[in-house]
Amino acid sequence: MPQPPIEKLAIDTIRTLSIDAVQKANSGHPGAPMALAPVAYALWQNVLRYDPSEPTWPNRDRFVLSNGHASMLLYSVLHLTGVRQVDHEGRALDAPAVSLDDIKSFRQLGSRTPGHPEYRLTSGVESTTGPLGQGAANSVGMAIASRWLGARYNRPGLTLFDFDVYAILGDGCMMEGISSEAASLAGHLKLPNLCWLYDNNHISLDGKLALSFSEDVPERFEAYGWATTHVTDANDLAQLAKAFQFFKQQGRPTLIVVDSHIGYGSPKRQDTSAAHGEPLGEDQVRAAKQFYGWPEDAQFLVPDGVREHFQQGIGIRGRKLRQEWEATRERYRKEAPDLSRDLDLIDRFELPPGWDAELPVFPADPKGMATRESGGQVLNALAKRIPWLLGGAADLSGSTKVTIKGEPNLAAGEPGGRNIYYGVREHAMGAIVNGMVLSKLRAFGSTFLTFTDYMRAPIRLSSLMEIPAFHVMTHDSIGLGEDGPTHQPIEQLASLRAMPGLLVIRPGDANEVTECYRVVMESKHHPAILSLSRQALPTFDRTKYAPASGARKGAYVLAEAEGGKPEVLLMATGSEVRLIVEAHEKLKAEGIRARAISMPCWEIFEQQSPEYRESVLPSSVTARVAVEQAAMFGWKAYVGRTGKILGMKSFGASAPIKDLLPHFGFTTDHVVAAAKEQLGRKGP
Amino acid sequence: MPQPPIEKLAIDTIRTLSIDAVQKANSGHPGAPMALAPVAYALWQNVLRYDPSEPTWPNRDRFVLSNGHASMLLYSVLHLTGVRQVDHEGRALDAPAVSLDDIKSFRQLGSRTPGHPEYRLTSGVESTTGPLGQGAANSVGMAIASRWLGARYNRPGLTLFDFDVYAILGDGCMMEGISSEAASLAGHLKLPNLCWLYDNNHISLDGKLALSFSEDVPERFEAYGWATTHVTDANDLAQLAKAFQFFKQQGRPTLIVVDSHIGYGSPKRQDTSAAHGEPLGEDQVRAAKQFYGWPEDAQFLVPDGVREHFQQGIGIRGRKLRQEWEATRERYRKEAPDLSRDLDLIDRFELPPGWDAELPVFPADPKGMATRESGGQVLNALAKRIPWLLGGAADLSGSTKVTIKGEPNLAAGEPGGRNIYYGVREHAMGAIVNGMVLSKLRAFGSTFLTFTDYMRAPIRLSSLMEIPAFHVMTHDSIGLGEDGPTHQPIEQLASLRAMPGLLVIRPGDANEVTECYRVVMESKHHPAILSLSRQALPTFDRTKYAPASGARKGAYVLAEAEGGKPEVLLMATGSEVRLIVEAHEKLKAEGIRARAISMPCWEIFEQQSPEYRESVLPSSVTARVAVEQAAMFGWKAYVGRTGKILGMKSFGASAPIKDLLPHFGFTTDHVVAAAKEQLGRKGP
Repeated sequence: MPQPPIEKLAIDTIRTLSIDAVQKANSGHPGAPMALAPVAYALWQNVLRYDPSEPTWPNRDRFVLSNGHASMLLYSVLHLTGVRQVDHEGRALDAPAVSLDDIKSFRQLGSRTPGHPEYRLTSGVESTTGPLGQGAANSVGMAIASRWLGARYNRPGLTLFDFDVYAILGDGCMMEGISSEAASLAGHLKLPNLCWLYDNNHISLDGKLALSFSEDVPERFEAYGWATTHVTDANDLAQLAKAFQFFKQQGRPTLIVVDSHIGYGSPKRQDTSAAHGEPLGEDQVRAAKQFYGWPEDAQFLVPDGVREHFQQGIGIRGRKLRQEWEATRERYRKEAPDLSRDLDLIDRFELPPGWDAELPVFPADPKGMATRESGGQVLNALAKRIPWLLGGAADLSGSTKVTIKGEPNLAAGEPGGRNIYYGVREHAMGAIVNGMVLSKLRAFGSTFLTFTDYMRAPIRLSSLMEIPAFHVMTHDSIGLGEDGPTHQPIEQLASLRAMPGLLVIRPGDANEVTECYRVVMESKHHPAILSLSRQALPTFDRTKYAPASGARKGAYVLAEAEGGKPEVLLMATGSEVRLIVEAHEKLKAEGIRARAISMPCWEIFEQQSPEYRESVLPSSVTARVAVEQAAMFGWKAYVGRTGKILGMKSFGASAPIKDLLPHFGFTTDHVVAAAKEQLGRKGP
Repeated sequence: MPQPPIEKLAIDTIRTLSIDAVQKANSGHPGAPMALAPVAYALWQNVLRYDPSEPTWPNRDRFVLSNGHASMLLYSVLHLTGVRQVDHEGRALDAPAVSLDDIKSFRQLGSRTPGHPEYRLTSGVESTTGPLGQGAANSVGMAIASRWLGARYNRPGLTLFDFDVYAILGDGCMMEGISSEAASLAGHLKLPNLCWLYDNNHISLDGKLALSFSEDVPERFEAYGWATTHVTDANDLAQLAKAFQFFKQQGRPTLIVVDSHIGYGSPKRQDTSAAHGEPLGEDQVRAAKQFYGWPEDAQFLVPDGVREHFQQGIGIRGRKLRQEWEATRERYRKEAPDLSRDLDLIDRFELPPGWDAELPVFPADPKGMATRESGGQVLNALAKRIPWLLGGAADLSGSTKVTIKGEPNLAAGEPGGRNIYYGVREHAMGAIVNGMVLSKLRAFGSTFLTFTDYMRAPIRLSSLMEIPAFHVMTHDSIGLGEDGPTHQPIEQLASLRAMPGLLVIRPGDANEVTECYRVVMESKHHPAILSLSRQALPTFDRTKYAPASGARKGAYVLAEAEGGKPEVLLMATGSEVRLIVEAHEKLKAEGIRARAISMPCWEIFEQQSPEYRESVLPSSVTARVAVEQAAMFGWKAYVGRTGKILGMKSFGASAPIKDLLPHFGFTTDHVVAAAKEQLGRKGP
């Protein structure tokens, strides 16, 4: 038979590699790659400004596969375009990100082709996706970052940042609330560099999409302020090219609705939900190959000329773009040396020299201040020295104190603003922060601690991706008072501490806030939640007690027992540290040797040496009391099975703090009584 | 001055009660009640089919204040309309739900007027609201329930259920993704009995709404399939009346956009964000009263005639509607006695006699079946006997096995369907289930356990409201295999166990599934998460091991040590119970006395007597091993500081289960080794 045109051959290679990989793994999602192969082809080959030989080139266009289950689409493209793997410092290696062997090891232990794309594992994967809607919202963060970097660092004639961001969304992404939130904010900010491709295939996992979805999607996006256009056949490369051109002309975010056929080419599976999440089966694999005009027996076939075709297209085009950019970058280095140094730091994810020079030291003060207040001061001191630190709150910046003073608000007409009004969109905020951090900015979000419940999924993904996104979460206990149980976090601390790799940090006074922020800023691979109080906390006298720098170890002896020989250990975090310090003093007056231990971050404490941990919590001392205005879950690890935990057994209540604290048992006297009880009953 | 018209007097009483309560509490949100008083007035006085003397009348229209921070609006209305408090069995007491003293005790400990409205605490509060968007999504669940009850129980000439559901949303609710999800599903289902009132005031907490929001809201809702109408002045009662009339004629959900002025009447605070969340201050309280033509010095004033006015309006109208309904209900009792008995049970939230008659007992089977599979069988056995059990999944019913066989799908044209396709909308699903349960149906949702992350907030609210919403969460560990770390739950079990009152249940075999479902169905005040496996688990031989009924106690001795004298305790949940049973056998062969304890629900186990708990976990036995394919967080409570936990230290990986289990250390040999290690090193 005659050789089909090279475009079709390339597209069908994407399809058949995906089909074969899923079939060999006997697991995966063949339908979407079969449908979307021409879309990925059209984008990568002709539009995406991307150099496969330098996949971390800073101004590359970003491509996010929000429907991460279609991972084989991406892996096939990464393989065929020859994207190189990079090392931990971002240097391209002389090795493919995805080899043919990797494709043959799809979904196997240790391969670079896991079920859903994983950031850092596989070069060319810009974000870990799979939980639906997350990638779409990440893409908004990336588009904000592109604009922000451009506004802050481009100079006349020296355009370093203007990258575009593309995301593919399936029906699932479209139904998730997070994509609504993210699209609404993107429309508000008029992001001209954001393009979403909606895979409109009328099928979801449970069957016909009509079972659960009947929106007019373009109308919805127009309501957000987006431009929309329609590609009526995913296989029509001319329509696709036109749609991408349309996007470039809009000056606002653009939705391209692409009508596609899930499982395209499989006579029995096309347009069925069975094509979504199951291998086609040998029969249908062969039938689809027949439909494509492919040798039916061939597996993992890359026909002659296909790799070369990509090399001729995105390969040459991308390399040229990157080289031009590097020439500009060289000129920039000379013409704007200070800014250029900043960009080097950003690229290496490093902090500028002197970044901590203005960090405040707070004088001892029995009245003290709320940690949200000291937090705001520390954040501002950091922002002065780290120009690429930016963020904001989900409509609570007045309460959470995260405004960077003297800096403009980020807005459609002010893309370089550093104060971001995310709106009441916590879920999208989490994912947008991830997108900005993936673009190497130091970005943060903020709301009340309770509302981490709205954004667990992006917090989890930041942990999984090992990126240092951070969030300033205030009003962190029943101490917030009258707003009552709907707003008082109880189980949130425990539930976040359970997440692998996440730093949950609850400083006990203003100086601990400073030290904890050091930890957050120096972290390159751990996201963090800063848990801060609404109410004032005393600033401890550090001439009397241990220096706050101990907080950097996660837990430290704040007030030592007489002679360094404690008979009872008192532990607390955040606003309750004052209680154990006061109890320590009261017990001392009675001749009882109590050690007060501030434990702002369990995760970091657990990373310390066994010797250090034993020095803070000597195993010989079994009389132990922990105090935290939160669910007690998890504290047994430190107090043992017979220790006492003063915590919350229930949800909170709406009342002034002065009434809540005695009501729920959070007074110094309660701590003293618990310590004495422990001393009367030591045990295992 | 001349007496103003009674309508204005009534509306201004709502306003001034709200203002005075917030001012006295020195805490709260006066702005929205000042703006929305006429909206609440127009709805309650003239539209809402509601009898204040019987606030749990089953066919009452529901009113949900989704912007729960405006609680004083609701409390003022409950007070003025004379809504009565009901007892725990729903009987109206001769006492107001909200007395004037309650209003004077706004946001104080023990009052019925907490900062945000709390279900069960205060009659007339249909749902606990405050976390934004939740009430809106609850209202969709209620509207579904109304239609469902009507479809299933109305008979020709005997219309028992046709209640309408109204919700007020602020800008915050409108921005939250959950409201997008819920509105999309409501539009899909063409709910004709759902009316949302959008308080369009252009102000959010951080300032002008234009900082973060610029959607065309009506266009967005039209895209969802809603009808929309516009009230250009919240104070215009005629426009409001017309809008409510419009809603009744649409045959689909309706959005009424109401332009309002936050803090209406306060010369300095009106139309500012300061009116949102702070008391007005004495000066502005007086100034606002002056603007209303109110005596400036009066506090908590209810002018003569106002209570009577409400009594003449909603009082008489509501009582008549309720009495007519009761007459119909009496006829129904005679004409459809069987269905009538069902309704009595529904009303008392009881199960029908014989509800558990068809629960399966599974024969011993070393190969066994996945607990998602046995779960599906048990659910179907329950559904046969409990006609008002309904639910579905977030586009994963094929995987989570929750389809109720032989029953129709819930759809616009099939409002009595029992299989609900929520779409990929986990967050709304959680809140919609809450809304259905608040309407006394036994409703459930379902997805993969990992995606509880998307719906933490509604799960939390079900715990706080003490309603038995439940969710079937499958694919509950790394055992799901190839989908990899984005889909493998790790910290989810711990994070849910930390939530007060929530039953997190992870049965170890098919017969434990049956027993655990008993617990779920008999629970009236505890929501539940059923954590089920994707992979097959052996069905234990109950002639050899203890009966599965032990699972009802949360934890029980499944395989006893020789002579009932264990030297080491092995604990596990779910899919890992097989490992400790196998280890028990292997250790027995070596003469080591190991007890295997299945712990499907920690929360229930903690409710058992100290004696029972000691009998299962004797404190004298300190050699302990716990096994769970999840974060280890929390297990120290049971193994003690020196026990061994075989759990996950990191996120999972994408691979077939056969490779993952040894990779992460989940084999019988690992358990045996850990037990031996424990026996070599007993300690506190």
